[in-house]
Amino acid sequence: MSLHRIQVSELAQQMRLGPQETRHLQVLRLRVGGVVQVFDGKGSQASATITELEEGRALLTLTPEKATHARGAELPQPVTLAIALLKGDKLADVVRSATELGVARVQLLLTQHAEVREIGTQKLLRLRRIASEAARQSERSVTPEVLEPVRLADLKWEGQLLVAHPEAQAHLADFLDWQAPLTLLSGPEGGLSGAEVGGLQGRGAALIALGPRILRAETAPLALLGAIAATGV
Amino acid sequence: MSLHRIQVSELAQQMRLGPQETRHLQVLRLRVGGVVQVFDGKGSQASATITELEEGRALLTLTPEKATHARGAELPQPVTLAIALLKGDKLADVVRSATELGVARVQLLLTQHAEVREIGTQKLLRLRRIASEAARQSERSVTPEVLEPVRLADLKWEGQLLVAHPEAQAHLADFLDWQAPLTLLSGPEGGLSGAEVGGLQGRGAALIALGPRILRAETAPLALLGAIAATGV
Repeated sequence: MSLHRIQVSELAQQMRLGPQETRHLQVLRLRVGGVVQVFDGKGSQASATITELEEGRALLTLTPEKATHARGAELPQPVTLAIALLKGDKLADVVRSATELGVARVQLLLTQHAEVREIGTQKLLRLRRIASEAARQSERSVTPEVLEPVRLADLKWEGQLLVAHPEAQAHLADFLDWQAPLTLLSGPEGGLSGAEVGGLQGRGAALIALGPRILRAETAPLALLGAIAATGV
Repeated sequence: MSLHRIQVSELAQQMRLGPQETRHLQVLRLRVGGVVQVFDGKGSQASATITELEEGRALLTLTPEKATHARGAELPQPVTLAIALLKGDKLADVVRSATELGVARVQLLLTQHAEVREIGTQKLLRLRRIASEAARQSERSVTPEVLEPVRLADLKWEGQLLVAHPEAQAHLADFLDWQAPLTLLSGPEGGLSGAEVGGLQGRGAALIALGPRILRAETAPLALLGAIAATGV
C-alpha cells in the first residue's frame, strides 16, 4: 500500500502543519508514529513521521534514511495547458485530468468567442484546490499552478506553442521533441477566431489537428495531453 | 450554420418520427418545410425536409439531390473501447467523450477488482442515449453501440487487443497500423489483477503504457483515444 500524501510548504527536518492538513491526518486516522509521504508541490518529496498530533496542529519529522527525490512522475519538460474559460464546471474536470496527465501549469485565457468572460476568486481558488488534490492522488510531486486569466494577445510562452485547431494539417508528434518547454492551447466552446489564430501564428505558434470529429472544448485538451502520456514519457 | 441532426431507424424516402424525435424538432423550433440532417447511426446520413409535423409525430422526406455519404468522421478501422464498470456516473462521461473521439463500440466488462458488479437496465439505456446524443453533437454518422457487460474471460475481439497497463513497456504507436479492427481495454478503479492481465496476454493481447503517472480509471481510456485522435485519423 502506498503512503498517504501530505502537502507541506517546504521540505524541512521539522514540518509544522496547519489546521487543514492536521484535519486531513485525522480523517486518515493516522496517529503519532505514523509515516506519511510529504511533498512540496515544487518537485520534492520525502517520507516523514508524525511526531506531534493534536487538535488543529501537527508536527512531522523527516525520515532520515529516505532521500528526497524529484521528477519521478514529471514530464521531460514543463508543459503548460493554456485553456479558454469554459462554461459551468467544465474547467474543474479539465484541471483535474490535466493534473493527472502531468501538466506543470494551467494558464486560463480570455478569448473572443468565449461565453464566459471572467472567473471569480472563489472559482479560481477551487481550481487550485482541485489541482492540489489531483496532484496528491496521482502521486505527483509537482502541484500545477492555475494562473489567473490573461487575454490571448497577452499570453507569453517559452519554447513551443501548439494550438489545437480543426483545420490544422500538422500533428502533435511532428513537434514533440522535448528540447524546450511546451504550451498546448485549446479554445472555448465557440472556437478561436480567425484573427486570434492568425495572431498566434504570427507569434510563432503551430496549429495541430485532432482528427475530423468535432470535439467539445473540454475534450480537446485531454486528447492533447493523452497523446503525450501515450508516448510513455 | 450546420443542419440540425435527427436520428432515424433507417434512411428511406419517407421517415416517420416518434414522439421523442418529434419533440426534439419542436424544441429546435423547426416547422414544415425545414431541412434537417438525418442519420441512421450505422454510417449513413442525408438531408431531409419536414413534410408533416404535429403533436407527437412528424414525417421527413429525403431530399433527392443530396446523396447519402458514410464514414465522414470515422476512424480507419472500427475501434472498440472495452471498459470495466466504474463507480458513480463515470461511465457516462467516458461514453460521451469516447463517442466524440470516434469509437465504434463500447463493451462493458466485469473484472475481478471492480467495485461495481453489475449495471441496471436503466443505466445501460442511459449510456446508449448518451452515445446517441454525443454522436449527433459531434456530427458523426455512426452511433457507438454500448454492449451489456461480459466477463473479462468471455471478451471476444477481432484484430488487435491493446490493454492499458502501468507496467507496460510498449506504446500505442508501436501497434497503430490500421490493418485490422482495434480494441482498447481499460480496467476498473482497482486495476486488473495479475491473473486477468496474464490471461489476456495468453490470448494475444499487448500491454501499452500511459506514462509514469497514476491515471484515474475514467482518464486512461480518454488518454488512449486522445492519442489516436492526435494522429489526425
